[in-house]
Amino acid sequence: MRVALNCDLGEGFGRWDLGADEELMNYITAANIACGMHAGDPPRIAATVRLAAAKGVGVGAHPSYPDLQGFGRRYMDMPPDEIRDFVTYQLGALQAFARAAGTRVEHVKAHGALYNRAADDEATARAIVEGVLQADPELVVVVLAGSRFEQVARDMGARVACEVFGDRAYDANGRLVSRRQAGSVIHDPEVVAERVWRMVSEGRVQAITGEWVPVKADTVCVHGDSPGAVALVARIRQVLTERGVQLVTIGRLF
Amino acid sequence: MRVALNCDLGEGFGRWDLGADEELMNYITAANIACGMHAGDPPRIAATVRLAAAKGVGVGAHPSYPDLQGFGRRYMDMPPDEIRDFVTYQLGALQAFARAAGTRVEHVKAHGALYNRAADDEATARAIVEGVLQADPELVVVVLAGSRFEQVARDMGARVACEVFGDRAYDANGRLVSRRQAGSVIHDPEVVAERVWRMVSEGRVQAITGEWVPVKADTVCVHGDSPGAVALVARIRQVLTERGVQLVTIGRLF
Amino acid sequence: MRVALNCDLGEGFGRWDLGADEELMNYITAANIACGMHAGDPPRIAATVRLAAAKGVGVGAHPSYPDLQGFGRRYMDMPPDEIRDFVTYQLGALQAFARAAGTRVEHVKAHGALYNRAADDEATARAIVEGVLQADPELVVVVLAGSRFEQVARDMGARVACEVFGDRAYDANGRLVSRRQAGSVIHDPEVVAERVWRMVSEGRVQAITGEWVPVKADTVCVHGDSPGAVALVARIRQVLTERGVQLVTIGRLF
Amino acid sequence: MRVALNCDLGEGFGRWDLGADEELMNYITAANIACGMHAGDPPRIAATVRLAAAKGVGVGAHPSYPDLQGFGRRYMDMPPDEIRDFVTYQLGALQAFARAAGTRVEHVKAHGALYNRAADDEATARAIVEGVLQADPELVVVVLAGSRFEQVARDMGARVACEVFGDRAYDANGRLVSRRQAGSVIHDPEVVAERVWRMVSEGRVQAITGEWVPVKADTVCVHGDSPGAVALVARIRQVLTERGVQLVTIGRLF
Repeated sequence: MRVALNCDLGEGFGRWDLGADEELMNYITAANIACGMHAGDPPRIAATVRLAAAKGVGVGAHPSYPDLQGFGRRYMDMPPDEIRDFVTYQLGALQAFARAAGTRVEHVKAHGALYNRAADDEATARAIVEGVLQADPELVVVVLAGSRFEQVARDMGARVACEVFGDRAYDANGRLVSRRQAGSVIHDPEVVAERVWRMVSEGRVQAITGEWVPVKADTVCVHGDSPGAVALVARIRQVLTERGVQLVTIGRLF
Repeated sequence: MRVALNCDLGEGFGRWDLGADEELMNYITAANIACGMHAGDPPRIAATVRLAAAKGVGVGAHPSYPDLQGFGRRYMDMPPDEIRDFVTYQLGALQAFARAAGTRVEHVKAHGALYNRAADDEATARAIVEGVLQADPELVVVVLAGSRFEQVARDMGARVACEVFGDRAYDANGRLVSRRQAGSVIHDPEVVAERVWRMVSEGRVQAITGEWVPVKADTVCVHGDSPGAVALVARIRQVLTERGVQLVTIGRLF
Repeated sequence: MRVALNCDLGEGFGRWDLGADEELMNYITAANIACGMHAGDPPRIAATVRLAAAKGVGVGAHPSYPDLQGFGRRYMDMPPDEIRDFVTYQLGALQAFARAAGTRVEHVKAHGALYNRAADDEATARAIVEGVLQADPELVVVVLAGSRFEQVARDMGARVACEVFGDRAYDANGRLVSRRQAGSVIHDPEVVAERVWRMVSEGRVQAITGEWVPVKADTVCVHGDSPGAVALVARIRQVLTERGVQLVTIGRLF
Repeated sequence: MRVALNCDLGEGFGRWDLGADEELMNYITAANIACGMHAGDPPRIAATVRLAAAKGVGVGAHPSYPDLQGFGRRYMDMPPDEIRDFVTYQLGALQAFARAAGTRVEHVKAHGALYNRAADDEATARAIVEGVLQADPELVVVVLAGSRFEQVARDMGARVACEVFGDRAYDANGRLVSRRQAGSVIHDPEVVAERVWRMVSEGRVQAITGEWVPVKADTVCVHGDSPGAVALVARIRQVLTERGVQLVTIGRLF
């Protein structure tokens, strides 16, 4: 059993820091690095890539709608070909820093509203995948497991890693329950770690309504910007490794 | 005799166009493409790279200080390591679009105030060259012929192309006369074309004070955003080709 | 009969110009001045306000979603309280330039996607009006005649000017026909001028399907960024003045 | 004896927070609020103004060079008339939020590199003061005590408040010692508080070389973004109030 623990990193900008990047890098195996559109200026990207390279963490691009003030968290009605080119732009910038650090970009995970939109909207999903493929067809595209995005990426011939969330409730259709709904976010580290273990080892998760739903867990998303984030990630890692799961970068999943 | 005619292109942004890119591409051999910091958003970069590839024009990066409102024309007191990373970022983004268009970036020419600063300031020159080398040591760095920038780039082992200006007056030390001084810009296409011919064929230019000054002319800068720009470029190209000069991309100069 | 001819102005940014501002100011009576979020940097705003003041054209704010690259033309899913504060910010900045020029801001017209969204979406309409009222309750809010936006603004006690478009087709419900539909934009200056005359003098417009639809025409929008724009505006002005319509600023409509 | 304690506030942006604004507002009397160019987006500006109004803290504008990524800390070679208009823009935006909160802007303190440049450069100082005066001649301009900036502002007829720094070393000419020099920043709260007391009550400060230098202390700058900032501000306030100094907003100094 192999899985990658991924986390969004490098999400400060200029004077502003965010998250415990350095500590988190001790536990995760895949870094989704902000590329300048919702966070992440060039010096910060360079430093984050160097840190990931030094710790053996897989480098991934974390492209976003161009929206610093909104942190890429709000939908923008961009034409698909513009989305494609914004993805390529951010990815290319990151690739140069990866080369400079003696490593390479392994995966791409869209950020925030762009990721959420791609889960349901075929045109957005397609635009993201085109943006990746035109830059480098070897890259792995991270998609919400079971989403329209997964289907589109597979149909387009991209390499795909299915993502699951240990700290989020799922509904009976295998979709994430909206954060606005009560019980949608799970805070207890033990409960989260066990859910992750079940998803990885059994390929299923218990929905908020009680049913067991199949999920494909190539990579588990952990969040770095909440209190207790480091402890939660450490616990997930411990549970998985103790039970024999091999933690690898996204590029080494397949 | 070989020379490259280079021009800044793709310098619009979003809704705003600038310059007669498509026409100019019929005459030049090297495009310095704005990479997003003073001009050039991703869709525009993509389109400009495709156009250059289709016309056989060499693709180059045109990185700048991050200053959209000032169009990269004003000095910013950035630390050298930040300059280095901003150059790498812009260059990497362009490289991805070049790959997408089935071509590659051949050269890098800093834009506006960054170029001007590098001509005289060793730390800035060094930062630019580091930003290029860490992304791709094969790239050719365009420098003001005879400047501190040229010396630094050679000392650092970079591939270097020396740039001259046919429409600008030089002083007796081979430096450009400030645009604020009367007579600093030459408008007559015939005079400009002859000056370029002398620089390319004889390796010298007549200073504003009358002396003949040696210059190394690997590439000639032409400007695209003034009235009469296309006619001027066409005339320079005609004079050079009629007299047996081979016009090539910057990557094929050596 | 009184009407105001309004036009979007000052929509360049930094190095980039757009539209024939100075010429247009000879014909219009109300300038919607870009305030920095989709176009318009401070020096340009200052210059545009001074020009309007010198020509006796009424100064209005033209606030937008924060989106330079997209020119404010794409919907962004911003929370209403953020929209409100972005409107206040842009409006306040313009007011300072108006004071500096010895005049005052008279009206506010939302730009692009923000205006379009407000026409149908109550939360957006309300946010814009709140953003105006909290800065200055005397300001006139320009709304699409007959829209949800008009109703919301009136219910909130704002001063309201109803806007019509001479060069756009209307449907039988008095709504604008989408630009994507054939026949949605009218190019013939005579036809446009006559339509405007009917809207102003008779309070009605002929829908694309033939019916006559009532419209309230306090102000007519003219566009400045298309070829022939100046000629079209000049013709509208001529027809209206010849037939006795008084052309005034939006602040002097009531 | 009257003095104002001023502090830079509202210096986050979008997702990024910075400084303990709410706590600091319990001790200071004048808030220099970031206006969007180095920090401070509209919703944050609105919230900071409301907080200041609620706590009776005087509202001031904190305009900057347009440089989010560099946090306004690096010199930019802007023409003076552009500086003037950028100051007016930022000030006007803040004034609208002040009106919305039922208060008014009392003072203007330039931020970072703009403030530092104005201390020595007459053209910059003049541009800032023009930017203030054209928006509202009643506003108080905060200047480095004894600087060229102070002289220029007085000559131009502006209302002026002289600023001193309790935690910075001064040289024998009454200028701040560069932060790069050892001993330039004083960390001991008791030492800082006593220095402030001397500056306020005796109008003098002991230079790093031992001499006593006269300074005019209308307002004392305190910093909010260092560890221990709140404790230091609290101590300064306590010492001053215990010894009979009246702490007022900058608008009530005169």
